[in-house]
Amino acid sequence: MRGIRAGVYGGSGYAGLDLVELLNRHPNVELAFATSNTYVGDAVPGSDLSFLSPGSVTLDDVDVIFLALPHKASAEVARQGVDAGVKVVDLSADLRLDTAESYEENYGIPHPHPELLPTPYGLPEINRANIIDQDLIATPGCYPTTTLLGLFPLLRCGGIHHDAPIIVDAKSGVTGAGRKPSLSTHFAEVYGNLLPYKTGRSHRHVGEMEQEALKVDREIGPIIFCPHLLPVDRGLMSSIYVTLDDSLSSGQAHDLFCEVYDNEALVDVLPPGEQASLKQAVKTNKCIISITPVLRQYLHVTSVTDNLRKGASSQAVQNMNLMFGIDETLGLI
Amino acid sequence: MRGIRAGVYGGSGYAGLDLVELLNRHPNVELAFATSNTYVGDAVPGSDLSFLSPGSVTLDDVDVIFLALPHKASAEVARQGVDAGVKVVDLSADLRLDTAESYEENYGIPHPHPELLPTPYGLPEINRANIIDQDLIATPGCYPTTTLLGLFPLLRCGGIHHDAPIIVDAKSGVTGAGRKPSLSTHFAEVYGNLLPYKTGRSHRHVGEMEQEALKVDREIGPIIFCPHLLPVDRGLMSSIYVTLDDSLSSGQAHDLFCEVYDNEALVDVLPPGEQASLKQAVKTNKCIISITPVLRQYLHVTSVTDNLRKGASSQAVQNMNLMFGIDETLGLI
Amino acid sequence: MRGIRAGVYGGSGYAGLDLVELLNRHPNVELAFATSNTYVGDAVPGSDLSFLSPGSVTLDDVDVIFLALPHKASAEVARQGVDAGVKVVDLSADLRLDTAESYEENYGIPHPHPELLPTPYGLPEINRANIIDQDLIATPGCYPTTTLLGLFPLLRCGGIHHDAPIIVDAKSGVTGAGRKPSLSTHFAEVYGNLLPYKTGRSHRHVGEMEQEALKVDREIGPIIFCPHLLPVDRGLMSSIYVTLDDSLSSGQAHDLFCEVYDNEALVDVLPPGEQASLKQAVKTNKCIISITPVLRQYLHVTSVTDNLRKGASSQAVQNMNLMFGIDETLGLI
Amino acid sequence: MRGIRAGVYGGSGYAGLDLVELLNRHPNVELAFATSNTYVGDAVPGSDLSFLSPGSVTLDDVDVIFLALPHKASAEVARQGVDAGVKVVDLSADLRLDTAESYEENYGIPHPHPELLPTPYGLPEINRANIIDQDLIATPGCYPTTTLLGLFPLLRCGGIHHDAPIIVDAKSGVTGAGRKPSLSTHFAEVYGNLLPYKTGRSHRHVGEMEQEALKVDREIGPIIFCPHLLPVDRGLMSSIYVTLDDSLSSGQAHDLFCEVYDNEALVDVLPPGEQASLKQAVKTNKCIISITPVLRQYLHVTSVTDNLRKGASSQAVQNMNLMFGIDETLGLI
Repeated sequence: MRGIRAGVYGGSGYAGLDLVELLNRHPNVELAFATSNTYVGDAVPGSDLSFLSPGSVTLDDVDVIFLALPHKASAEVARQGVDAGVKVVDLSADLRLDTAESYEENYGIPHPHPELLPTPYGLPEINRANIIDQDLIATPGCYPTTTLLGLFPLLRCGGIHHDAPIIVDAKSGVTGAGRKPSLSTHFAEVYGNLLPYKTGRSHRHVGEMEQEALKVDREIGPIIFCPHLLPVDRGLMSSIYVTLDDSLSSGQAHDLFCEVYDNEALVDVLPPGEQASLKQAVKTNKCIISITPVLRQYLHVTSVTDNLRKGASSQAVQNMNLMFGIDETLGLI
Repeated sequence: MRGIRAGVYGGSGYAGLDLVELLNRHPNVELAFATSNTYVGDAVPGSDLSFLSPGSVTLDDVDVIFLALPHKASAEVARQGVDAGVKVVDLSADLRLDTAESYEENYGIPHPHPELLPTPYGLPEINRANIIDQDLIATPGCYPTTTLLGLFPLLRCGGIHHDAPIIVDAKSGVTGAGRKPSLSTHFAEVYGNLLPYKTGRSHRHVGEMEQEALKVDREIGPIIFCPHLLPVDRGLMSSIYVTLDDSLSSGQAHDLFCEVYDNEALVDVLPPGEQASLKQAVKTNKCIISITPVLRQYLHVTSVTDNLRKGASSQAVQNMNLMFGIDETLGLI
Repeated sequence: MRGIRAGVYGGSGYAGLDLVELLNRHPNVELAFATSNTYVGDAVPGSDLSFLSPGSVTLDDVDVIFLALPHKASAEVARQGVDAGVKVVDLSADLRLDTAESYEENYGIPHPHPELLPTPYGLPEINRANIIDQDLIATPGCYPTTTLLGLFPLLRCGGIHHDAPIIVDAKSGVTGAGRKPSLSTHFAEVYGNLLPYKTGRSHRHVGEMEQEALKVDREIGPIIFCPHLLPVDRGLMSSIYVTLDDSLSSGQAHDLFCEVYDNEALVDVLPPGEQASLKQAVKTNKCIISITPVLRQYLHVTSVTDNLRKGASSQAVQNMNLMFGIDETLGLI
Repeated sequence: MRGIRAGVYGGSGYAGLDLVELLNRHPNVELAFATSNTYVGDAVPGSDLSFLSPGSVTLDDVDVIFLALPHKASAEVARQGVDAGVKVVDLSADLRLDTAESYEENYGIPHPHPELLPTPYGLPEINRANIIDQDLIATPGCYPTTTLLGLFPLLRCGGIHHDAPIIVDAKSGVTGAGRKPSLSTHFAEVYGNLLPYKTGRSHRHVGEMEQEALKVDREIGPIIFCPHLLPVDRGLMSSIYVTLDDSLSSGQAHDLFCEVYDNEALVDVLPPGEQASLKQAVKTNKCIISITPVLRQYLHVTSVTDNLRKGASSQAVQNMNLMFGIDETLGLI
């Protein structure tokens, strides 16, 4: 009954390890292989497998591959997967932007496989119809997922004032920076600290966020995005501050969010007065959202995920479920 | 030469303990007593004294008292100090608001000693002239200090757009919540978490911040203030997002901040491109500020202090220095 | 099929909350109620129930009750459970010591229900035969569980030198101190600290450890036990140092441990050269053990558990499984 | 009056940075240069200097150099310093062992400059007479310093049982592992963890500890040493368990420690019943010791330092003070 055979590229990074854990307990999936550059030969946690080098695996025997790889490296393997006729869930940034121009602008290099663009954007709560039964999906990053889910109901109803910026003050646990050692992730540097980085609009995910937000409301103002490195291992919070236009008052926003996410098993909207906190989302596959009306025309939305789950691995599994036409939440709740 | 004899009320709380430490190493101060309700008889760190109960001390032998007490309790002792003819540095919220009406509105109780209002607001970089040689000063709280220092140059030059809100996303270490045990400060609750609280405009310090900001620019929009509890012991960051009007472009802001704070020994403005981080301020007596221009008309200011120092105890000492007409930074750098 | 109806007393403490979580996902258990003194009316996480006051529940409709209560309070409810004919899994210290004398010596008060003593000690890997089908079990504390599992193979083979002490340097996360707020669990006190407490032989669990150890080898020397409070939320490590007698050399110990725990699903003995670390056990229901031979006659054993799981709640469920004659690991792996 | 001109090699590592901080506030020292391989050109904190490459400095203009360098690299520079006639305080392991044989045994490489051996061991409380006025001193590491200070009074009085091992269960903050990024110091790996490493007698500092301990009591048993990586940035605790012989009962030990350390400004012996905790030593230049008698013949000593201060940089300054014949605690209290 474990009908879907899955391979994971980049299985020893933090997102990859969470992905392996989720696939191991997915009732319909059998983990066929997991690759690693750094840990070849080490045991794949929770399985009888060992990490293989990416060059030593074949796609003959799998139905789907997950790419938890750095950008640039990922597109290449996506191409191979598509050519081999297996489904591909890409977790990198390579296929998230719709055009090669936009990619080059944000990542500073020509797109390695522009013929794969545009790839459907794998944020099911917003783009489900375009994910079902597809063969290639670009799973969004942790910041865009968390932020877009906090904005989507407002974007959809057109209630955001078009002349005001959207302020996103975001905070992420250190696993978001990857497993490769660096001074910026050294314990003694992070401990007791809080550090803004890539402020203004310089973070690469701003392009991805605006691309998707503008598809829903094409007239919103700019997103001012400031991520911070939090001294915790997991969890991501986007604190979103928007100005509403006359069509929506802040007091109506909570009902709006409840309505939009009413049937979403992986998004929880908290009751009025409660605040979403990091720990509510950590080690879950959910996005937790709280809403604070401020005066009549301002709204403060707190949107929280586990950056390695709904911000990466569990969303990838959610996409896989949709791509195979099975229950979207299988193995996730 | 240790001419100034000082008494500390509330010396066993976190701010009180830092205050005692600073006074012990101040070249002109001799610590005369420190009171505590909970730790009477315990040694006062760094001295030969023991904590006394507040009722057992007299003011006959001191020149100045510091009140690191809860609001409501503090005004009473301030009154006694004034009557006894000693200088009083109040660290509580009791004397920060200019009117009894405003106090009752924010704190829900009638002001205990309205005749003491208005008391000069003890934020030297903004209000120095009104602190020098005074006998009674209200030292501001950690959130207002950090936020107002991050806003002041913009307020003074009138460059903030009057139709836009001022967004302040703030994060504080746990000592800001006081030393009294509660579930919200229990290690296991805070560890690995990030928690917004008193969101919107419900935090009591919003009134204090707006009162002082409006004195500098009376037409600014509302301050939308959201504090978060950070899983660290010390440090406070105010992330401030403002919209500028036509009189100031974002690219001009850095020069403006440098000019305003050029002679301030306890405020550092970082070079363009650098970001203020929590650890830069922790265990120092400074406010560290970084500025990020975003497009032409938006500005992201990060202002950081140690909540127990420039946000409480060291600012109280700075005020004391001014009140006695001695070098403002004595014992602080 | 969820045939066993279970009630939890003290369900809002840290061990109680983990117990509720485990029972909610146990295939054969239905959670009937959870009590709390502090959180009556709040939702019981993961269920449709609300916390009830202990006085408002009846035992008519349950098959088993778990007592995650303070000592002294627990024996009273155990008595009621026994009288009502339901099975009782006590997680408190009330029923762990075999005699009322020993209880009074360690806890300083007369035993509330001496007629319940001795109660079978619920450490299945050591005492399984006496747990199966029983109606009342005393689940051991986190320190004794972790330490005894690290010692048991050595005790059973009689390889510990009788003239030398057994040194146990233990370290526990803060949840081990309970959820009730106190200065010693205040975030700002624990953060960045490591604190020995109840050193020597003054910790109450020493009596329990020695009682059970002496049942296996009656001639061992004293246990010198020093617990430390670790600045993490969960996890417990017992670092055990023993001197061996001539019957066992340090090089033989690893095989011994493997043999003893070969069929134990909830105890993992690591391969030679690997070290058990806290995170390997956290959020699992296992005890992880590593063994380091030192010279010929000394052994350093590191034994790690999640203090709220194998050190409390999951061991309680393991006991329940045995008491009902079902698969011991049901709901636990 | 800042008569002593000092150069620091390896000034950008964690110990080097603390050393720079201490030298900057030492009344008699002027910092002449600080070298770094990784951060050449960056500002040296608290000074007007920039980090220089080691090859670009000369010794013409300095009176003393501090070597906060890796072993092997350090001996080379020590040689140069000696040849240039400047005093040398080595913080590396290169000169701590008395013989080239011992060095090769512990470090696996031939000693780079055996002619410099034996170098006086720079633990002033034990070896002061051999440090005063010397030109070359080997400052001990953090584990030996903390452990030897916890053992010294017992060693000196010959009270440790010769047939029993000395158990040292040690715990160190992450700065002890150096600033160079690696997976083992990655925030996400360390956070929430506690990890034993180099267990048994495999840690390189065991040789150094035993060498010095045996100089005081040549018949003690082996030291069984197990270090652990603690999830904090700073601080080191050695938990020492010894068996006493008939000449000393555990109840006499406290007086013994007080007597031995009575005149030591940088060692504090806590009153009976109090326990040394990590935070008491962090950011101080002291070693804090507490003593727990266990039964008549066992003793549990907790010895705590800041691994970067008394375990490295402040001890180096203490040695420098002695080498120049000035007050040993100048700049340190």
